[in-house]
Amino acid sequence: MSARPIALTLGDPAGIGPEVSAKCWQYREEFGLAPFLAIGDPASLAAVWDGPVAAIDGPEEAIDAFDEALPVLAVSNLGPCVPGEPSHTGARCALESLELGVGLARSGSVDAVVTGPVSKAQLYQIGFTHPGQTEFVAERCGVAKSNVAMMLAGPTLRCVPVTTHIPLKQASANLSEDLVAAKARATLRGLIRNFGIERPKLAISGLNPHAGEHGALGDEEETIIRPAIATLREEGWDVTGPLPADTMFHARARALYDAALCMYHDQALIPLKALHFDDGVNFTLGLPIVRTSPDHGTAFDIAGMDMAEPTAMAAAIRVASEAAACRASLSDPVPSAINAPQ
Amino acid sequence: MSARPIALTLGDPAGIGPEVSAKCWQYREEFGLAPFLAIGDPASLAAVWDGPVAAIDGPEEAIDAFDEALPVLAVSNLGPCVPGEPSHTGARCALESLELGVGLARSGSVDAVVTGPVSKAQLYQIGFTHPGQTEFVAERCGVAKSNVAMMLAGPTLRCVPVTTHIPLKQASANLSEDLVAAKARATLRGLIRNFGIERPKLAISGLNPHAGEHGALGDEEETIIRPAIATLREEGWDVTGPLPADTMFHARARALYDAALCMYHDQALIPLKALHFDDGVNFTLGLPIVRTSPDHGTAFDIAGMDMAEPTAMAAAIRVASEAAACRASLSDPVPSAINAPQ
Repeated sequence: MSARPIALTLGDPAGIGPEVSAKCWQYREEFGLAPFLAIGDPASLAAVWDGPVAAIDGPEEAIDAFDEALPVLAVSNLGPCVPGEPSHTGARCALESLELGVGLARSGSVDAVVTGPVSKAQLYQIGFTHPGQTEFVAERCGVAKSNVAMMLAGPTLRCVPVTTHIPLKQASANLSEDLVAAKARATLRGLIRNFGIERPKLAISGLNPHAGEHGALGDEEETIIRPAIATLREEGWDVTGPLPADTMFHARARALYDAALCMYHDQALIPLKALHFDDGVNFTLGLPIVRTSPDHGTAFDIAGMDMAEPTAMAAAIRVASEAAACRASLSDPVPSAINAPQ
Repeated sequence: MSARPIALTLGDPAGIGPEVSAKCWQYREEFGLAPFLAIGDPASLAAVWDGPVAAIDGPEEAIDAFDEALPVLAVSNLGPCVPGEPSHTGARCALESLELGVGLARSGSVDAVVTGPVSKAQLYQIGFTHPGQTEFVAERCGVAKSNVAMMLAGPTLRCVPVTTHIPLKQASANLSEDLVAAKARATLRGLIRNFGIERPKLAISGLNPHAGEHGALGDEEETIIRPAIATLREEGWDVTGPLPADTMFHARARALYDAALCMYHDQALIPLKALHFDDGVNFTLGLPIVRTSPDHGTAFDIAGMDMAEPTAMAAAIRVASEAAACRASLSDPVPSAINAPQ
């Protein structure tokens, strides 16, 4: 076992982040979780949970404390903490927790950071300028947005969307050969580095129905996706596509690849959540650190009602631990395009 | 049991249609299939199957013959019939079979028509001007395209796309409040009429990621979909939405509605095929006749190899029989918008 814990940010203190984090500690043995520490407002835990909490001053105290209590690294929150009632002070607390969690991961004090759900609307109100936590983490790690990929990972499917939170009618204009290739490389390297897959297989979808039917139903497959695939193959990567998106996600099709690269948000998220709604993990590929998050939001409407399921958070912690262990075991963890497998 | 058979067109004689049709007769008891007759070139059956065939002159002979042999109503094919080798003569045979199958259903000589897979590319070469079989059938039945809906039905999910075979970037421009409402009504009436659901629940997706996040990620939800939903509710229909497409297809979400109305091809087809690849049925709603088809293509690459699975064709026959029985049992099978359930 690693000598370092996983850092878990509680996310928005008024959301379900504190509750699912506490439940993960409570059921740590059933879930098979390595030691972790929570970062956030201890009051947000106390508001929804009466289990044992150990106030710690740094991550080095977490592993000893973990057996008996949930170790918490406190972040100040100047306001009251009421489940289901988001506030500016709560958003500031969430942002400070995120900043600290990423900092600890970058410094190597923790093995990975798992980020709890935040409210983008609340963060925007306090001046947050990134589209989401992923872009914030990428910036703090000094990695260009196009080299970072958002992977959604479930037990039988991993998906990465090339474009994400934009209107559907802009998806085509936001695609380019370079972007498809960059996201593909981030995904392929991420599979080697975090999942220990020596020679990963990537399936790349088309944008249009039936992958465009040779141009009859759209031309992005011919002008953008196919050239990107040709480049990737020249680099030695094992890539197939462009595939019709509707026939690439059934069980026999999924068995043929390690991850699917999709052209837009719902093309990736629909199959992932249809199949793995309760245990989907959001994994940010392309970073120097391991960062995962549960694939759900703050769910303010059920916060404080003891209704939140911790399975996705537990999966996020487990996947993060496994990725950290995988990275530690690799001698050359970041193959560049040039030394891609032949 | 109905006194009339189901008509099954064999589709392109060089595709897998003949093989899966023959296998459906062979395993008719295991699949629980009501009597059906095949329409097409008997040579296309003989090329892939050595089971018993009964040449019949009309559908009224089919039920007596069905116990001992697959009843076939022959359609002339002037060319040779080689599995995996499509031809103009084969396309003409497929089209004539379709015309006859639809005609028999319209005249009431058969209870329903199940159409085998055709090659659009082949049909286009002989002058076929419809996008697909569905539009052809609609025209022959005198129903406007916008009032016909293509439902993909599996055991735990039924989906209807509002727009279908167009480039993705044109999906937004092809949506309108009227079209969404028309497809919703066709779907709702179809659920009553063919599936016997007295007060159907329809879930309507958004177009954009997260259903547009109140306009932040696209405005079609506010300008097109929400107004259509308001109109449908005023008419008394039980409709919800616009829902984020990525969270509407997991098991708990699916339990809340009878069908999902989706904005574009892959939004409907991805979840349907991810969940029900082998038993998805294409059901054309809005027609005076019952018409279904298996949700797969001609698969020329495996035709004649005894590799084709008949499960989807069997599901198409079964769903067609059930729909015909349902229609026969209803006293007012076609509620208009005005007398929609309150």
